[in-house]
Amino acid sequence: MRLIKPLRPSSVIGILGGGQLGRMLALAAARLGLKCHIYAPAGDNPAFDVAVAHTEAPYDDWRALQAFSASVDVATYEFENVPAETAAFISQRLPLAPRAEVLAITQDRLREKTFLSGLGVAVSPFAAVHDEESLERALARIGRPAILKTRRLGYDGKGQLTIAPGDDHTRAWATSGGSPSIIERVIPFAKEISVIAARTSDDTFVAYDLPENEHENGILRRSTVPARISPEAAGRALDIAHTIAAELDYVGVIGVEMFVTAEGVLVNEIAPRVHNSGHWTIDACVVSQFEQHIRAIAGWPLGDPYRHDDAVMINLLGGEAEDWTDLAAQPLAAVHLYGKTAARPGRKMGHVTRLTPRQA
Amino acid sequence: MRLIKPLRPSSVIGILGGGQLGRMLALAAARLGLKCHIYAPAGDNPAFDVAVAHTEAPYDDWRALQAFSASVDVATYEFENVPAETAAFISQRLPLAPRAEVLAITQDRLREKTFLSGLGVAVSPFAAVHDEESLERALARIGRPAILKTRRLGYDGKGQLTIAPGDDHTRAWATSGGSPSIIERVIPFAKEISVIAARTSDDTFVAYDLPENEHENGILRRSTVPARISPEAAGRALDIAHTIAAELDYVGVIGVEMFVTAEGVLVNEIAPRVHNSGHWTIDACVVSQFEQHIRAIAGWPLGDPYRHDDAVMINLLGGEAEDWTDLAAQPLAAVHLYGKTAARPGRKMGHVTRLTPRQA
Repeated sequence: MRLIKPLRPSSVIGILGGGQLGRMLALAAARLGLKCHIYAPAGDNPAFDVAVAHTEAPYDDWRALQAFSASVDVATYEFENVPAETAAFISQRLPLAPRAEVLAITQDRLREKTFLSGLGVAVSPFAAVHDEESLERALARIGRPAILKTRRLGYDGKGQLTIAPGDDHTRAWATSGGSPSIIERVIPFAKEISVIAARTSDDTFVAYDLPENEHENGILRRSTVPARISPEAAGRALDIAHTIAAELDYVGVIGVEMFVTAEGVLVNEIAPRVHNSGHWTIDACVVSQFEQHIRAIAGWPLGDPYRHDDAVMINLLGGEAEDWTDLAAQPLAAVHLYGKTAARPGRKMGHVTRLTPRQA
Repeated sequence: MRLIKPLRPSSVIGILGGGQLGRMLALAAARLGLKCHIYAPAGDNPAFDVAVAHTEAPYDDWRALQAFSASVDVATYEFENVPAETAAFISQRLPLAPRAEVLAITQDRLREKTFLSGLGVAVSPFAAVHDEESLERALARIGRPAILKTRRLGYDGKGQLTIAPGDDHTRAWATSGGSPSIIERVIPFAKEISVIAARTSDDTFVAYDLPENEHENGILRRSTVPARISPEAAGRALDIAHTIAAELDYVGVIGVEMFVTAEGVLVNEIAPRVHNSGHWTIDACVVSQFEQHIRAIAGWPLGDPYRHDDAVMINLLGGEAEDWTDLAAQPLAAVHLYGKTAARPGRKMGHVTRLTPRQA
């Protein structure tokens, strides 16, 4: 289903998922005079605090989903693990953006990599793994070191296991838990980057300047913009992201994580949503990735992705957010706290964006 | 009452008033992980849509005010006409910032002008008026043209009447409705400017770059920053605002409207709150006036008022907000819509801030 015309101010956007991405989407929607209704299962749902309405219910509560669908003008999601049945249920009732098929592809790592290969987009060598024997065959073919990942679920490095030369693959398979998996060759790379871009149904495609990303323990630690990569690599990255978004008939903001290697640009992962490596757009751009997503799904014109400053975004993990008074006292630092209650180690509690005048 | 230490994230800020200023305060508080509870009488209260809680009740509903007071950690207000009794009631129960005495002074135009004169701050010649005879005497003393204003209430030019040379003062008094009033001489001025600044209880005073303001029919139309005034006038304006804020023992963001005249800088009006002429700070600064106010009243360190771009803020009045799709399509334009339902002529429905790279 498609929107025929732009949603008027005071229309209601339905958001599946109640975390910080939903919260920042709701804050961005409010700037435009749009209301949000958040749907999320029980838990710590900081998006509830800034929305006009919320429903706390499981993703398979069809009565609750029916009422939610009836109360909103368009629906979207803030994370990629919304069950396929939930997405299908909503799609039958109102426009869902990005569409359900995008979720189906991106929530299965094997299907995602197969989709990318089919598009002619470079990815690490990979293979499906479903038992010890298929793991052994795959390792022999793609080589080591390699990463074994569950096909479904898992984020921030969860559900992942590195198999180095000399590691016992039998033991690795036992440790992994044995769910349907994908194995990928570890490719030495110079930089991790991401494309944060929006696409509308008429194939308007608008990308922000590329950030360069650093991870620690599988979790994004820092994004620096602009990325220190060649114009050729940047151009190639944008072309790849546009190809992917067009093929998916994507509407909304997409995050595409990539590696810049000696051989060129490889795609690591597609995030069918606003992305942590785009949080700096709140403070360094006129229109943030969150507003851009809302504009795209509401049928509004996309915003100018102009970046007025260079930026470094640093995630505040676990107890790091406790330093809030020190962080708030730093010049040119924009502090964002997500209003989560429990600061578990490694949990994303907030972020800080530091601005410096543009160098170019 | 004062806060002893900074409010922790997830603390609750109580805001009296549910309009766009309350809404933008709540959005800014959310960035910092703080929650808001909005208290406002029945009406179009767009701040309700983005706050964790709201109470819709009159300002003299003491039970509702009691419950509100018990549910928040600090209280503030988004407009200056909160009744004195309401402010006193809250002040007895929890910290209110700015303090109730600030309201008492600024909600009475005569008391405000008298306060300013007493500080040695230049203002237009003025006089109290309570009947036809006192109006005649005042006109003879201060001269014409002059503006007759009600002492209390009235905003955006409401409750104001210009008396030109030759106008019949008897008729003017009858037209005005006869409430206790103040008359002020109209002084020819080169520029209208405002100081948007924050003060904390230890007299830390942080001001934004000064905007230059243009009004139409008594309503702010446009603010341009930086103001095209001399460094001497700018310095004098900041000194005046600091003097006022210190004398009021002010905590929070204050807006001081001024005229730059051939004879120097005159103060027109004090707004004990975030101010329409400071809305450009959302898009042109790292820390907006709204976040700055929240920081001040929550006992957080004040933010850096650094402005990364030049800016022009234009109010969208009445039906002008209907052009939202055109506005949203313009490059370097940040569109803000307040989510109000009825677009009455002259009503502030939103604003647009246009950025251009800094000239200096």
